[in-house]
Amino acid sequence: MTEQQPGHHMAAEIAQQPAIFSGLVERRSGIARVAEVVRERKPRFVLFAARGSSDHAALYAKYLTEVLLELPAGLVSPSTTTLYGGKPDLRDVLVVSVSQSGGSPDLLEVTQAARKQGALTVAVTNTSDSPLNAAAELSVDVGAGVEHAVAATKTYSATLLALYLLFDGIRGGNGEHAARLGELAQSTLDGAEEAVVEAVRRYRFVDRVLTTGRGFSLPTALEAALKLAETSYLAARAYSGADLLHGPVAAVDGETAVLAVTSAGKGGDALHEVLDVVHGRGADVLAVGSAADKVSAALRIPVAETAEEVAPILEILPVQRLALGLALARGGDPDSPRGLKKVTRTR
Amino acid sequence: MTEQQPGHHMAAEIAQQPAIFSGLVERRSGIARVAEVVRERKPRFVLFAARGSSDHAALYAKYLTEVLLELPAGLVSPSTTTLYGGKPDLRDVLVVSVSQSGGSPDLLEVTQAARKQGALTVAVTNTSDSPLNAAAELSVDVGAGVEHAVAATKTYSATLLALYLLFDGIRGGNGEHAARLGELAQSTLDGAEEAVVEAVRRYRFVDRVLTTGRGFSLPTALEAALKLAETSYLAARAYSGADLLHGPVAAVDGETAVLAVTSAGKGGDALHEVLDVVHGRGADVLAVGSAADKVSAALRIPVAETAEEVAPILEILPVQRLALGLALARGGDPDSPRGLKKVTRTR
Repeated sequence: MTEQQPGHHMAAEIAQQPAIFSGLVERRSGIARVAEVVRERKPRFVLFAARGSSDHAALYAKYLTEVLLELPAGLVSPSTTTLYGGKPDLRDVLVVSVSQSGGSPDLLEVTQAARKQGALTVAVTNTSDSPLNAAAELSVDVGAGVEHAVAATKTYSATLLALYLLFDGIRGGNGEHAARLGELAQSTLDGAEEAVVEAVRRYRFVDRVLTTGRGFSLPTALEAALKLAETSYLAARAYSGADLLHGPVAAVDGETAVLAVTSAGKGGDALHEVLDVVHGRGADVLAVGSAADKVSAALRIPVAETAEEVAPILEILPVQRLALGLALARGGDPDSPRGLKKVTRTR
Repeated sequence: MTEQQPGHHMAAEIAQQPAIFSGLVERRSGIARVAEVVRERKPRFVLFAARGSSDHAALYAKYLTEVLLELPAGLVSPSTTTLYGGKPDLRDVLVVSVSQSGGSPDLLEVTQAARKQGALTVAVTNTSDSPLNAAAELSVDVGAGVEHAVAATKTYSATLLALYLLFDGIRGGNGEHAARLGELAQSTLDGAEEAVVEAVRRYRFVDRVLTTGRGFSLPTALEAALKLAETSYLAARAYSGADLLHGPVAAVDGETAVLAVTSAGKGGDALHEVLDVVHGRGADVLAVGSAADKVSAALRIPVAETAEEVAPILEILPVQRLALGLALARGGDPDSPRGLKKVTRTR
């Protein structure tokens, strides 16, 4: 590929993911050391600070916290620090700031304030010399290499994996479910290709896209909607399967494509009922996941099966390919979407 | 109005809000007693459990917690209890379950589990004899009266007010900013009418709607998107002003209407930069709030000015009127949107 081809950065970075996963698993002892420090400090609550794609990675880690560590957790609203100057009592609190660049001023401010307020602070970034790493007491390096495409792909999935290794380490695990993820990522990318090409053809002209998932797969649904919005300018919205039935289902009709993340496990099982309703309303369902063949769907994209808590690390891969394919088919360049820059300097 | 007119329930319930606010403020001593018990127990962390519109009310209360109480807070992912059976250590944790019906099985299960795990549990409902009230140690009655329309209006705003009175009480306040809200709600509804009629005319044929806000006004942006989606079937998406610039702004163009919640205060101020970008991309901005006249916008809907922490209680009123007006203009019946029922029984 030449430098001029639209989407070549995004395509290359998607393809790097299997090797990045394997490398991160090999170097997991560094993350294990951070996990050990956190474990010794016995946090009682966990807060996450993040924006954009990293916010979806943080939500994934919130599930890990609640399910694996059995600790209460929350996502920080940065504005309570940056706009309103709140100074919460953060003793016994672990604050994990997630940012690929480590350069967002608001996360920096949140992390500095949290450390001052007594929190144990950990930065999870893909830029180990970033201001965020300097501000936090501990750091985890995602190690995905420089990301050139504006749309985050490899930094998102590698951040998920780093968070899994961190939180599994905090509970005293050895990251067993991560061991084969490099290989499974490759087989997922290869195995999904045909269905992705078919999906690009099918959704080339779609206007209304809704994404949904439950449990561990909800972050994938959120990231899928963001990826489609930022690369293909689609009006894609994400809902938890549970919330969808509360109100937004009224907007689902025969003109709606529903991307449903359905992996083997409890989250995927809980989506069956939701998809029956959505399907009954005439929506076109695209199921993505290792249990895609178990639900009512017009089209299915398979994903290699894993333990449910690491499934999001693989689920997103064919979704990235789909976003890339749709963007190209619709004449866009996902490497430089209109109006986006890599680091957003909000406060 | 006769029983047959579409939207008559929703119209009537919108109009009841000023009186409901005044009534709730008059009966605030009941909430103050609950607040006093919570205050004595000195929680160190606050979790909220909710779904749908109530989830937006919970997010509002999360801001109150972080800014007014200066305590860390989070929104519970119900599935970690209902699907994955997580049993977190919840000593020193206040768990507030918000549900107008008090009948969602998943919130009931979360509340029961939280109480068992050592949390102080408070149910905030509009149905004081609900299972949720029975499950929680303490209860706050929203007192908005029976809601007939499927789209929540008065129960949403009254829940916000009840939560304000509760959290202000927990920090030892006397609810001073709530005192005149009944009267200000009436002047907001009256004062916004002309602009709402104009907005219905302007957005009658819109397809792409994005809503945005920051800080205390973010919950209003989320509720606005939900209200438009469930009554007018619009593909409306909500983003924090900060997140919007991270990626979704790529999907903003001349065909996009952006509903921006801009009240006087720090959240509204922080939106100026965002709206300059959005405006520069050719989007049509509808500003709603007491500082609507301060931003670049095509149309403005005024709202009475209040302290920023209670502004969301008024901001939503003209948005409800807009959702009603658009639904009727587009031939729908917001009292019975296609495919919706009042209580959703997800687990």
